[in-house]
Amino acid sequence: MEENWKIAGKTLRSRLIVGTGKYADQSILPQVMQAAETDVVTVAVRRMNLAGMPENIMDSIPADAVLMPNTSGARNAAEAVRIARLAKAAGYGDWIKIEVIGDARYLLPDNQETIEATRILAAEGFTVFPYMNPDLYAARALVAAGATAIMPLGAPIGSNRGLETQAMLRILLAELPDMPIIVDAGIGRPSEAAAAMEMGAAAVMVNTAIASAKEPVKMAAAFAKAVAAGRLAYLAGPGSRRETAVASSPLTGFLRREPNHEQC
Amino acid sequence: MEENWKIAGKTLRSRLIVGTGKYADQSILPQVMQAAETDVVTVAVRRMNLAGMPENIMDSIPADAVLMPNTSGARNAAEAVRIARLAKAAGYGDWIKIEVIGDARYLLPDNQETIEATRILAAEGFTVFPYMNPDLYAARALVAAGATAIMPLGAPIGSNRGLETQAMLRILLAELPDMPIIVDAGIGRPSEAAAAMEMGAAAVMVNTAIASAKEPVKMAAAFAKAVAAGRLAYLAGPGSRRETAVASSPLTGFLRREPNHEQC
Amino acid sequence: MEENWKIAGKTLRSRLIVGTGKYADQSILPQVMQAAETDVVTVAVRRMNLAGMPENIMDSIPADAVLMPNTSGARNAAEAVRIARLAKAAGYGDWIKIEVIGDARYLLPDNQETIEATRILAAEGFTVFPYMNPDLYAARALVAAGATAIMPLGAPIGSNRGLETQAMLRILLAELPDMPIIVDAGIGRPSEAAAAMEMGAAAVMVNTAIASAKEPVKMAAAFAKAVAAGRLAYLAGPGSRRETAVASSPLTGFLRREPNHEQC
Amino acid sequence: MEENWKIAGKTLRSRLIVGTGKYADQSILPQVMQAAETDVVTVAVRRMNLAGMPENIMDSIPADAVLMPNTSGARNAAEAVRIARLAKAAGYGDWIKIEVIGDARYLLPDNQETIEATRILAAEGFTVFPYMNPDLYAARALVAAGATAIMPLGAPIGSNRGLETQAMLRILLAELPDMPIIVDAGIGRPSEAAAAMEMGAAAVMVNTAIASAKEPVKMAAAFAKAVAAGRLAYLAGPGSRRETAVASSPLTGFLRREPNHEQC
Repeated sequence: MEENWKIAGKTLRSRLIVGTGKYADQSILPQVMQAAETDVVTVAVRRMNLAGMPENIMDSIPADAVLMPNTSGARNAAEAVRIARLAKAAGYGDWIKIEVIGDARYLLPDNQETIEATRILAAEGFTVFPYMNPDLYAARALVAAGATAIMPLGAPIGSNRGLETQAMLRILLAELPDMPIIVDAGIGRPSEAAAAMEMGAAAVMVNTAIASAKEPVKMAAAFAKAVAAGRLAYLAGPGSRRETAVASSPLTGFLRREPNHEQC
Repeated sequence: MEENWKIAGKTLRSRLIVGTGKYADQSILPQVMQAAETDVVTVAVRRMNLAGMPENIMDSIPADAVLMPNTSGARNAAEAVRIARLAKAAGYGDWIKIEVIGDARYLLPDNQETIEATRILAAEGFTVFPYMNPDLYAARALVAAGATAIMPLGAPIGSNRGLETQAMLRILLAELPDMPIIVDAGIGRPSEAAAAMEMGAAAVMVNTAIASAKEPVKMAAAFAKAVAAGRLAYLAGPGSRRETAVASSPLTGFLRREPNHEQC
Repeated sequence: MEENWKIAGKTLRSRLIVGTGKYADQSILPQVMQAAETDVVTVAVRRMNLAGMPENIMDSIPADAVLMPNTSGARNAAEAVRIARLAKAAGYGDWIKIEVIGDARYLLPDNQETIEATRILAAEGFTVFPYMNPDLYAARALVAAGATAIMPLGAPIGSNRGLETQAMLRILLAELPDMPIIVDAGIGRPSEAAAAMEMGAAAVMVNTAIASAKEPVKMAAAFAKAVAAGRLAYLAGPGSRRETAVASSPLTGFLRREPNHEQC
Repeated sequence: MEENWKIAGKTLRSRLIVGTGKYADQSILPQVMQAAETDVVTVAVRRMNLAGMPENIMDSIPADAVLMPNTSGARNAAEAVRIARLAKAAGYGDWIKIEVIGDARYLLPDNQETIEATRILAAEGFTVFPYMNPDLYAARALVAAGATAIMPLGAPIGSNRGLETQAMLRILLAELPDMPIIVDAGIGRPSEAAAAMEMGAAAVMVNTAIASAKEPVKMAAAFAKAVAAGRLAYLAGPGSRRETAVASSPLTGFLRREPNHEQC
């Protein structure tokens, strides 16, 4: 019943993008990916097997997953650009998630540096997915800069606080109907991922909520179902909310109209 | 990965109970039930084929579904009791969902009349599922009266407003850990059903949200997935919410520590 | 600009009722009362100077305050009735706030026992203010039992969690327009007291939020203003909420229409 | 009990800034200002009596109010700068509220153009109050550009939707403790103004909520009290929120410990 979707020429089945950070035990990652039924996986370029670094996270990622390297650790556009080029030169493809973070406490994305990095990398042929604070003007600038999709945050990274920015997310969804919007960061529960999809998000990205669960594999499966549920609900067209109640079952007159039942 | 559950001696796969009211076109019901992957279906006794009434909703309900007749239309305990007996006498089994509603605008359940009806019907051997306003004392009285599960409302019937009573639902879930709690009424979106399950509800009951969707069959499938997602998330043990951010990917020192990459 | 109001034959200026429990230092109470500009004060009968008990809280209450003794400590109707009679016999007037609590963790009121106590005490000539869980049927039963006003909770006592029950409070306010509704328990911030008044509450009762503040006298003054603000806003008739924006200032054409300003 | 505050060398009593747009009947403005007890009033430069324009809103503003002209109608930095200079040249002082809006539906501020206008006007000696979307990097850039205070929105202008951006407002308040933060736009109820002040805002700006009330003068008085209440509550230091209940009155043993009262 679910439909595939396309982005940057790739056909994907899943609308759940999964991150690979924060796992105490990385050997669980293949099971998490499988349970998540995900097609796209983000990995910090920092942790990829560049120049013989000891961490070898790539071994934990399924061979058929689409890789979305991210520039975490970049504090400005120039650093993000350099990290992106490193990943490409190392053979990790041309998808890049831009993360530019200059704030140590809330880890919020720097929209302006992100726009600049998007412009440079899109011009170089990268497929660019910028992580951003949901601001309508920044979103439009990212579209103009050549972003393939935008990735606004729901709440600070790793906070598991859900869709705190939902008023702004709704505006982005309403005003940029042709731009895929992938809600990234802050989603802490499958119900919140479903809610983002019901609002019309193209996909969601989840990392901490799975990695911090007591049973990450089970939680990955939960997110897979929730994202599919939210997408289906969006397509199904929810009914409107109402101030008062509306009976599901007929309320009037059952026993009153049928005096022959009175003896029961 | 999902587990079956048992209630009143029946083994069920699904934790989604579906209602049958409010469908403009009842011929769609079998497809809705199938998409919902539900095992339990509620039907107003009023609409059942008693004494040759013209409406024949029973033809639309899968033969293998567990039937949960409801007493909608009852305004007090006595009427609910009579409706329950009618259903049993007509061969519809001994499960009964008690709805006693004396309020025309918000259709709220009358807890005291519901407790009384529960006591009478449980003593007669019915398997009783009372619809209730989430109040801890009423919940305890329903347990004492012999209820098999309790069905507190999330919001007024048909309002699609979600979990407005969630503070009280959390208290019921915490204080009655051995009683199955089925959130009934008000759930308008699959994300809200998932949230109820994440809180620890045993099941949810949905009617209007499916019936009022533009595409009810698709919405039924969405709810099936969302309920399964919420249950899995509950079992997986979600991580805690945090005030500030926590990095998913390593943030420090990538480019700074590796001067040999600086030329990129 | 504020109007007096009447309840049970007394004319009051303030719509803020203040409790006297939980103060580390009771000598601060007269200042708190003054800052709160309150006319009505609740005191646990248990703490009143009955039969020469050592605690002498009555010394801390202004002589002109209307006293609302409460039955805290009562676990059922009979105990509440006895406590009420004790207070009256000791000369503390005929106002009584009924609190019947049989739950040790959330301290929720037992609506049924409260209705019973209300019936007995109202028949004896008491002016009865029952503390209750906001349930429409219980509210109607309290009206029928002779309550002067009803006191539904916003959240569990002492939790400072605000208006968690607001969906039910709105229903009570809509369905019982002639009954004074005093929101009691759970209010933790002046903004929440204001919100309750904006919804149409007749008054609010606050204890923990003031007593647990770092500076209780200042917080009492804050609540006095917030309650007055909320009442005025209710009377002023707030404008409706809107999906999109509406300019406060003219947005179009300023510079465009006035070419003579272009040189600036 | 309330303290004065200083901003840009002016001592103010009130923390409520009032707008002058959207009044059906402008003759009510002096009463609104008086009831609001405000010291600072914003007026669109467009509506000021420049070059003999017919609208003469300045007649409705108290002579002792501090005037905060705003640049509404500006679509970019250059237009905002020109409007600001116009106001100054016409003798309306050097305070300027920068509004740069390039979005017709939600009327959201354009942070980047606003930063640019702030830089130019602050360098020219204006006292600059930029209206902004609450983004931490933009807020820091505004500080660096010379803003006197920042004015983040709570919700789209005129929407009466309250503090939809509160997660970001909290971050700004935490990270910029030395910068006055004035919550502007979206506040629809006095309770919401109080909540903004309780969070630590320096002031709030209100227009639509007063102008769209059925009785604007009364609503202005309500906001005056609510803002003062919120400020006092912030200073008083609210107690913490708790999961479970905490008794306000002693709950244990009253009747049980005193057998001599049993006969009552």
